[in-house]
Amino acid sequence: MAEYSKGDADRFNDVFQDLVRDITEDDAANPEIRDAALRFEKMMKYNIPHGKRNRGLTTVASFRFLASPSQATDANVFKAMVLGWCVEWLQAYFLISDDIMDQSKTRRGQPCWFRKADVGLDAINDSFFVESGIYKLLKKHIAGEPYYVNVLELFHETNYQTVVGQSLDLITSPEGNKDLNRFTQQRYDAIVKWKTAFYSFYLPVALAMYMVGISDPESHKNAKTILLQMGHFFQVQDDFLDCYGNPEVIGKIGTDIEENKCSWLVVQALKSATPEQREILEENYGIDNPAKVAMVKRLYKDLDLETVYKNYEESSYQDLMTSIDTHSGHLPKEMFVAYARKIFKRNK
Amino acid sequence: MAEYSKGDADRFNDVFQDLVRDITEDDAANPEIRDAALRFEKMMKYNIPHGKRNRGLTTVASFRFLASPSQATDANVFKAMVLGWCVEWLQAYFLISDDIMDQSKTRRGQPCWFRKADVGLDAINDSFFVESGIYKLLKKHIAGEPYYVNVLELFHETNYQTVVGQSLDLITSPEGNKDLNRFTQQRYDAIVKWKTAFYSFYLPVALAMYMVGISDPESHKNAKTILLQMGHFFQVQDDFLDCYGNPEVIGKIGTDIEENKCSWLVVQALKSATPEQREILEENYGIDNPAKVAMVKRLYKDLDLETVYKNYEESSYQDLMTSIDTHSGHLPKEMFVAYARKIFKRNK
Repeated sequence: MAEYSKGDADRFNDVFQDLVRDITEDDAANPEIRDAALRFEKMMKYNIPHGKRNRGLTTVASFRFLASPSQATDANVFKAMVLGWCVEWLQAYFLISDDIMDQSKTRRGQPCWFRKADVGLDAINDSFFVESGIYKLLKKHIAGEPYYVNVLELFHETNYQTVVGQSLDLITSPEGNKDLNRFTQQRYDAIVKWKTAFYSFYLPVALAMYMVGISDPESHKNAKTILLQMGHFFQVQDDFLDCYGNPEVIGKIGTDIEENKCSWLVVQALKSATPEQREILEENYGIDNPAKVAMVKRLYKDLDLETVYKNYEESSYQDLMTSIDTHSGHLPKEMFVAYARKIFKRNK
Repeated sequence: MAEYSKGDADRFNDVFQDLVRDITEDDAANPEIRDAALRFEKMMKYNIPHGKRNRGLTTVASFRFLASPSQATDANVFKAMVLGWCVEWLQAYFLISDDIMDQSKTRRGQPCWFRKADVGLDAINDSFFVESGIYKLLKKHIAGEPYYVNVLELFHETNYQTVVGQSLDLITSPEGNKDLNRFTQQRYDAIVKWKTAFYSFYLPVALAMYMVGISDPESHKNAKTILLQMGHFFQVQDDFLDCYGNPEVIGKIGTDIEENKCSWLVVQALKSATPEQREILEENYGIDNPAKVAMVKRLYKDLDLETVYKNYEESSYQDLMTSIDTHSGHLPKEMFVAYARKIFKRNK
């Protein structure tokens, strides 16, 4: 989310093919399991590299911010790229499986992997493979480093947190059992923190911190405070853009309303709705019908959620800057500020 | 698979509840995620403890075989039990998801977890949680030990191997696309090795080896040779019992034939079948119809697969004993012999 160096971004992209090869080349040369290895190679190329790669690039950018001149060697930048790709691997593993659980149709502009004719539920095993790939890459490239165990434990913990978050999300919006009472601010905050913010915001920076030898709990606690706050705003914005963003800019047509998502917008609407307005939500939210979606959007307009959002955005930015001032500690303030600026000005 | 000490087995059973609590107690006390924690607690109790626990108990028995008197403390036996339960956790994670991919109905005498009314595909996320639990338990109970990283890497590697094996199995028997040409001895051997033998046979013993400080590649290679061979026989026997075992003794009604499994029996049948007999398989194998299943069983009888199996069992046992003699090295021969005897005399 920083202004990534063009050189780093290009090299980061190039590294992908090598990492896929690291994972599959021995197996592809082993006749016992060659068929599986070739399938996995194709599967990784379909599912891993087509996102925005913000999480991976933030790992690299954070290493640049934190590394001393003697640490910022080419070899270490490459290791930061490996760790950055591991974050992308982690995300791909979640997305492949989330898409099955949500019965989604498309992802990153192509059909969801499990929708492909010869995949189906075998995609569950493919997602396990992607997760496994993380540890294969770490063993190959990071095992000799003093921060190896920190990194392993961080991936384990982040995986755990994200799974807990996904479970909360599933509990809150179970298929075929709508209940707007579950859409509280408290629940919204918890889902965002556990399902998204740990892996998307804390993880990339924490990896870079471990790389340069920052492993004290105090520094990590501080960084986490700032980054989870940033992650929270990011998700609110994402929810806002799902409804109010320009589909041509955000690259997808938002469907949070019809999919009964516990979105920031519906949570705000429920807070200020009159009993009559709440009735409108009860009758129209979470149903795949354009007329009903239009009713919800009309209600959002009546409640002036755009202004509610703009106010939230403004105060959120101020709060974040204060938090950066308070919690940066020995970490470079400009790193956090750069990420914050990058997010707050985005429109996609 | 050894003759487990009654005391160890009882204590092993008792430890389960404590380990579930280790995983969930902090989360259950955190109002943000309490709902998820309570669900996971119920889910683990449903899915993890109801098997035969052979893999977990073998871990403990192997520690008993390998530990020096000064190593065999109560505290270390407890750690061996934690590692044993981690193997059971790993297995549960595979079974929950395999049952979804195979669309199975029952498991260990109860409905498959994903078949429960309020679960469905959310079971995918539950299986991720179970996997995550392994690393939570290891961090809590093993992190201070010199063999911690060995154990982490072994779980990563075993997970990877099993996922590769599951993929091979799925490639070999894809739903709605039968092809008996794929059921070769070579493919059968590879599936057994990768999908079952590494995690069921090598893993429990290897964990105990690392615990007592045996980490040299030569010893692990030797143990692996013996244990994969044992695992192979175990699976052949499992396939045999699926068709020829007494349902009341094995606790399930075999369905390998109707489910188009790449079973050892069909692989042998294909080897010796005349073109006419092969035609019978082509027309009747892999179809959920009692008359067609009976046709296949009739063919197995004509081909005298029971005798083929008995001969295989006999030579297999001899080969395994030779292998134990050749490969035990510094490891106690009696450990391997005990496991071999336990398997060869089983009827369930």
